[in-house]
Amino acid sequence: MSRAGAGFRIIRRWAVLVLYSVVLVSTAFAQSDPLPSCNSGASKQAIVAFVDQVTSKGSSKFVPPAERIAVFDNDGTLWAEQPMYFQAFFIFDRVKALAPRHPEWKDKEPFASILKGDFKSALAGGEHALLEMAMATHAGMTTEAFEKIVDDWIRTAKHPLTGRPYTEMVYQPMLELLAYLRTNGFKTFIVSGGGIEFMRPWTERVYGIPPEQVIGSNIKTKFEMREGKPVIVRLAEINFIDDKAGKPAAIQHHIGRRPIFAFGNSDGDLEMLQWTAAGGILRPELLAL
Amino acid sequence: MSRAGAGFRIIRRWAVLVLYSVVLVSTAFAQSDPLPSCNSGASKQAIVAFVDQVTSKGSSKFVPPAERIAVFDNDGTLWAEQPMYFQAFFIFDRVKALAPRHPEWKDKEPFASILKGDFKSALAGGEHALLEMAMATHAGMTTEAFEKIVDDWIRTAKHPLTGRPYTEMVYQPMLELLAYLRTNGFKTFIVSGGGIEFMRPWTERVYGIPPEQVIGSNIKTKFEMREGKPVIVRLAEINFIDDKAGKPAAIQHHIGRRPIFAFGNSDGDLEMLQWTAAGGILRPELLAL
Repeated sequence: MSRAGAGFRIIRRWAVLVLYSVVLVSTAFAQSDPLPSCNSGASKQAIVAFVDQVTSKGSSKFVPPAERIAVFDNDGTLWAEQPMYFQAFFIFDRVKALAPRHPEWKDKEPFASILKGDFKSALAGGEHALLEMAMATHAGMTTEAFEKIVDDWIRTAKHPLTGRPYTEMVYQPMLELLAYLRTNGFKTFIVSGGGIEFMRPWTERVYGIPPEQVIGSNIKTKFEMREGKPVIVRLAEINFIDDKAGKPAAIQHHIGRRPIFAFGNSDGDLEMLQWTAAGGILRPELLAL
Repeated sequence: MSRAGAGFRIIRRWAVLVLYSVVLVSTAFAQSDPLPSCNSGASKQAIVAFVDQVTSKGSSKFVPPAERIAVFDNDGTLWAEQPMYFQAFFIFDRVKALAPRHPEWKDKEPFASILKGDFKSALAGGEHALLEMAMATHAGMTTEAFEKIVDDWIRTAKHPLTGRPYTEMVYQPMLELLAYLRTNGFKTFIVSGGGIEFMRPWTERVYGIPPEQVIGSNIKTKFEMREGKPVIVRLAEINFIDDKAGKPAAIQHHIGRRPIFAFGNSDGDLEMLQWTAAGGILRPELLAL
């Protein structure tokens, strides 16, 4: 949510990779390349060397499988984030879908601009405008109803510039990296500024990451009985923003142990990378994949 | 935390088992009993029949492994809770350990009574008194420091009545049930009113449940840099009470999908059981193991 507020802002794009222990030795991974789409030889070597170290029983850097926690940012890391966070497009589409129930939106910003198709004016109010639309469209229904809304949208919506489904705008080298880590006993988590329930309906299908390994920003909820049926209702109140210093706190809250591998692409990931690196890193490396 | 406030209160002890689908058919589990310590033939049959149903590929009740989520209460379910929640003894021991740094506690209730060994008077203030002591002893340090405090305590402390380590006061039939479910592809979670960071240092060793599958009450935290080192500091402010209606909300927050199996022993577990049962139960059964 908070990061979505950046909207059209140009984000300094850099990829940072933190390894528990990186020793750039040449390794015998040539015969079957686990990361065929990774262009950078040095980065690939570093990753493979790291995985070899933490998974080799004789190694002084051996990490038991249960402790092989890897965390990934989502927007700009696992899938694209241009020209703005994809969740913003979801919010705009929800505003349009709900407009018939809200005749007052025609004269009320930022909703009025969205309904005219003028995203730029709608976002002139910055993060606050986006948050207001998020609360108006992401709350007031049960968790089950919201899951269905997200699932329907992600299966049908198309990116305005590429015309492709959003779930096809994921980075192939990252899918290979996720699979490679899992093959080596890692548990892969998403730690994103995006909405936790916006991601969970599709991350397992797209990234192989189940909902219980998805961490994100979230709103408050309330359990109640409705006509004898238990439901969890989504409330229009922020519970937690999973960005910047929030990321390591959320990692501790959800996972309860420090990752040994973290991957992010923006300044919102810095604290998560610091937290991961401080777990015992010998040579922190900043590597562009 | 909140449930710990019940202190010496006699709790109606009942065990409730919710099964996604229970059909009491006799099954062919006799040749190798997966639950040798389970006394109740009917309960055992129901569990085995349920597991057979959800794991048999041809079954109309088949559940893919990724969706086999099982949740367990802790106090009174996986380990004992008499004469009071074990975390209360931890709190008392911490008050005593920290007393030299807090000379004012000698004249201040409920601390003064604890220091005299008079637990009953200390708890006369009910839940509020226990919470005050919890905040005074569970916050103000880093997550790493607290983990070490808990780990040291759980490895050395003895239950005042039995003289045994607390981690030996776990229920053998439940350990067998956890293992049986995991053997059948289930992911087992704890959903407890106890403190999340009070449980995580030992649940993997004792129950085979890793920290990321432990859900509990928790306090707010704050990430910060201390002398160039990133730390997460525990704050003396409740973030979430994982009890009653909080349990299904916490399940949604941490797991993001509905369990198909839930096990609890008190009214604090009712909503969690309702939420699980409403996922598609055909014949809800209340079974005393």
